[in-house]
Amino acid sequence: MHGYTQNKDEVQKRLRRIEGQVRGLQKMVDDDRYCIDVLTQISSATKALEGVALMLLDDHLQHCVAEAIATGGVDANQKLTEASHAIARLVKS
Amino acid sequence: MHGYTQNKDEVQKRLRRIEGQVRGLQKMVDDDRYCIDVLTQISSATKALEGVALMLLDDHLQHCVAEAIATGGVDANQKLTEASHAIARLVKS
Amino acid sequence: MHGYTQNKDEVQKRLRRIEGQVRGLQKMVDDDRYCIDVLTQISSATKALEGVALMLLDDHLQHCVAEAIATGGVDANQKLTEASHAIARLVKS
Amino acid sequence: MHGYTQNKDEVQKRLRRIEGQVRGLQKMVDDDRYCIDVLTQISSATKALEGVALMLLDDHLQHCVAEAIATGGVDANQKLTEASHAIARLVKS
Repeated sequence: MHGYTQNKDEVQKRLRRIEGQVRGLQKMVDDDRYCIDVLTQISSATKALEGVALMLLDDHLQHCVAEAIATGGVDANQKLTEASHAIARLVKS
Repeated sequence: MHGYTQNKDEVQKRLRRIEGQVRGLQKMVDDDRYCIDVLTQISSATKALEGVALMLLDDHLQHCVAEAIATGGVDANQKLTEASHAIARLVKS
Repeated sequence: MHGYTQNKDEVQKRLRRIEGQVRGLQKMVDDDRYCIDVLTQISSATKALEGVALMLLDDHLQHCVAEAIATGGVDANQKLTEASHAIARLVKS
Repeated sequence: MHGYTQNKDEVQKRLRRIEGQVRGLQKMVDDDRYCIDVLTQISSATKALEGVALMLLDDHLQHCVAEAIATGGVDANQKLTEASHAIARLVKS
């Protein structure tokens, strides 16, 4: 059981849509579409990926991290440190 | 002819790799992989998309924008404004 | 008592340094320094601000959020939702 | 003469406002204000800095880069490469 288990369908739906956007990008490049239009589509795919990341992170905090804290012990600290590192990677990416 | 025409193979190679990463993400979610590992993979795909965007933007400035400026006229201003807007979308995404 | 109470000196030291960078930016503009050098300094101040944000967020999760979860009740959910919103703002800014 | 010369007053006004925000942040920390409120203010200062960067970059492309291209020669390529690097730093910060 993970944080995202309850939202699995929604996560998968979003990821399939992003996969479609990335395939759409390949077609745009094949068709020699205008650079700026390709860039607009990339920004849109990037934002969509960030949306999935924020959703997963929220689920992770609400479930995995919250449970580890409620249980207590060493695992809670590790989970919090891990979450902080994941947040830092997201903010910097 | 677009800015990226000369780098088309490289752009397509990167986009196919990103498509593979997004499909890999779907498999990770299917397999109930740990949230943090999914997030790490999302950060990696986001960075890869940004890399493609920066490459296309560089090509666009070096070719389309530079040519419009060298030719002069109204088109040059429009191309510069357009590029600035694309940069703003990238910085904010 | 807040998450950052123990790191207050470090947070203030960083914020004073960022204030100095922003004043430095004003001087650069006054002195008509080259645009690209000004931009480099802005990127550096932005990264420094993000660093403070990540530090505060980590402290917040480790203390305020962890305590609310350990105590349980409605406050824990509110703190988690609040933290997720703050993370989303950071990722998008 | 730089790209931002015509907007110097506006740039300085924004930078002074950002300096005020960073000083406000120090006061918030001194006053032990709630972490999330400090984070919200940091996101706001970060966005404001990005706004100044995008303004300077736009001015830089419209003036310095456009003039170098119109003049032609080696300087044009260098200015374009330099601008691309500055954009990459901004996108990544």
